[in-house]
Amino acid sequence: MGKIALAIHGGAGTIRRSNMTPEMELEYRGALEAALRVGWDTLEKGGAALDAVEAAVVSLEDCPLFNAGRGSVFTHEGKNEMDAAIMDGSTINAGAVACVRNVKNPVKLARLVMERTEHVSLAGDGADLFAEQVGVELADNAYFYTEFRWKQLEEAIAAGKVQLDHAAYNSETQPPASASSSKPFGTVGAVACDSSGRLAAATSTGGMTNKKYGRVGDTAIIGAGTYAGEHCCVSCTGHGEYFMRNLTAYDVSARMKYKGLNLEDAARETIEHLTKIGGEGGLIAVDTAGNVVLPFNSEGMYRGWVVEDGSMNVDIYGETT
Amino acid sequence: MGKIALAIHGGAGTIRRSNMTPEMELEYRGALEAALRVGWDTLEKGGAALDAVEAAVVSLEDCPLFNAGRGSVFTHEGKNEMDAAIMDGSTINAGAVACVRNVKNPVKLARLVMERTEHVSLAGDGADLFAEQVGVELADNAYFYTEFRWKQLEEAIAAGKVQLDHAAYNSETQPPASASSSKPFGTVGAVACDSSGRLAAATSTGGMTNKKYGRVGDTAIIGAGTYAGEHCCVSCTGHGEYFMRNLTAYDVSARMKYKGLNLEDAARETIEHLTKIGGEGGLIAVDTAGNVVLPFNSEGMYRGWVVEDGSMNVDIYGETT
Repeated sequence: MGKIALAIHGGAGTIRRSNMTPEMELEYRGALEAALRVGWDTLEKGGAALDAVEAAVVSLEDCPLFNAGRGSVFTHEGKNEMDAAIMDGSTINAGAVACVRNVKNPVKLARLVMERTEHVSLAGDGADLFAEQVGVELADNAYFYTEFRWKQLEEAIAAGKVQLDHAAYNSETQPPASASSSKPFGTVGAVACDSSGRLAAATSTGGMTNKKYGRVGDTAIIGAGTYAGEHCCVSCTGHGEYFMRNLTAYDVSARMKYKGLNLEDAARETIEHLTKIGGEGGLIAVDTAGNVVLPFNSEGMYRGWVVEDGSMNVDIYGETT
Repeated sequence: MGKIALAIHGGAGTIRRSNMTPEMELEYRGALEAALRVGWDTLEKGGAALDAVEAAVVSLEDCPLFNAGRGSVFTHEGKNEMDAAIMDGSTINAGAVACVRNVKNPVKLARLVMERTEHVSLAGDGADLFAEQVGVELADNAYFYTEFRWKQLEEAIAAGKVQLDHAAYNSETQPPASASSSKPFGTVGAVACDSSGRLAAATSTGGMTNKKYGRVGDTAIIGAGTYAGEHCCVSCTGHGEYFMRNLTAYDVSARMKYKGLNLEDAARETIEHLTKIGGEGGLIAVDTAGNVVLPFNSEGMYRGWVVEDGSMNVDIYGETT
């Protein structure tokens, strides 16, 4: 039986110790540990990596602290539009949903797209219709309402800004002003290797506060925010546009597959390249030997991982923050 | 001054000599030559690869023969929903639009997303709103109406099928039955290298006949159907789901960048891998030395390319069809 491994993230960005109360930090740590626990339980019982990442992401989607599922941010129109993707490295099959509304756990719907349709990705009204037909659990608008997110929207509208996970920037064409926000946002994701050496990745997000114009992010794009293959599985978080242009999730795998790098070197090079082109964020990745890496170039990244003996690790800040 | 190069495609699939009249063939050849001419004119005058691929794709979008722009197929609801992407290899910047309606040339809108927003991809109503605000040319439903496409929809609805570029398959979960249709469908695309060695790629499609559920294809996904970087530029056509799972367009670039392959070997390996996993279609690619490749594993691919002396080549069938 091979080594099992699990890593999760709850978003990367300008997350500083100075902006965090001890109570908030405890809440985040508890939520990350809970997600690790459900994923690890699955793996320890000999379950599939695919089931483990789905369970971990569902746990994070159900927690109002993260920008995914229940805690999703509001679009300009005061709605929640969520994206999610899941990929099974053992079959190179994948499912994704974009701009879905009122779906309690978008990651579950992404899995059903993978398993019950011949498609990889469904978007918008069509994805919502599929959700109804396939009988996935729906939730009313009140379920997704959190006072904190609504205030974020009001502030963002007043300031004429859209807000990503990691920063706030003007909704016109200006480049993002990094470090201009310290709000604890967060896409969520999970990667795992099961006892058969199968890999899987899943990512889920509520997108950007005050989002307009049907912006498509990296989360639901296979190869950009989410990828699982023969060599590794990857889930990304950060400024999605850079991850899309650089196929960040697939790039880690390509550096292993074609350049012969190990997971650590491949992921480091990918993040170095992201930094070079001005992209901010991080990724979590696991390989078939059960190695785990969680590199990021932002100030912090909500993250957790389990080592072979089952001990859980949760961290929030970077080395210097 | 470096070698300039240009290649275009008008879709791959079950295109057989036996299903084509001499008149139809002449029409297709003429349309491909016209697109090559406008792209090549741009390059010969020292213009940018980005302008050349946009011009060539606009020419193909304006031709009712191809499944893009004017000739786009109808969705289940009798609408035209189009996707397009463009990428500039010299800046690694990209723009894409998905599910846009009434936009005369979706590739132009994709370029405006790249140049006038901080985003890579806009979808649905938001993309249509952006189109209005940015003042791109719109066209009414009648412009997109072609009797041939409407009949395709009626036939597809009657048969309970959705139709891709290259084949028809049942809208339930059955795998696509390849070679079950010989209709001349076609996503369109162009790749070019300009005299400064800059690379660019563009792809545009009208999607699937009788499309439901907001299916997202590969065309508008950077790295799947369209990619341009330092090493090569690629535009794909075929069964999009396989191109999405395998990041086909970026994969050619990754094999050059990380494995040190030349363009021909990289593209051949990528298509071999596509064949291995059951995917059908083809791609066109150009590198910075002006080499051109146009590999495909389907029965035919509408394609054209220009060699250094400016002579134009157009072809439709595979070696054995």
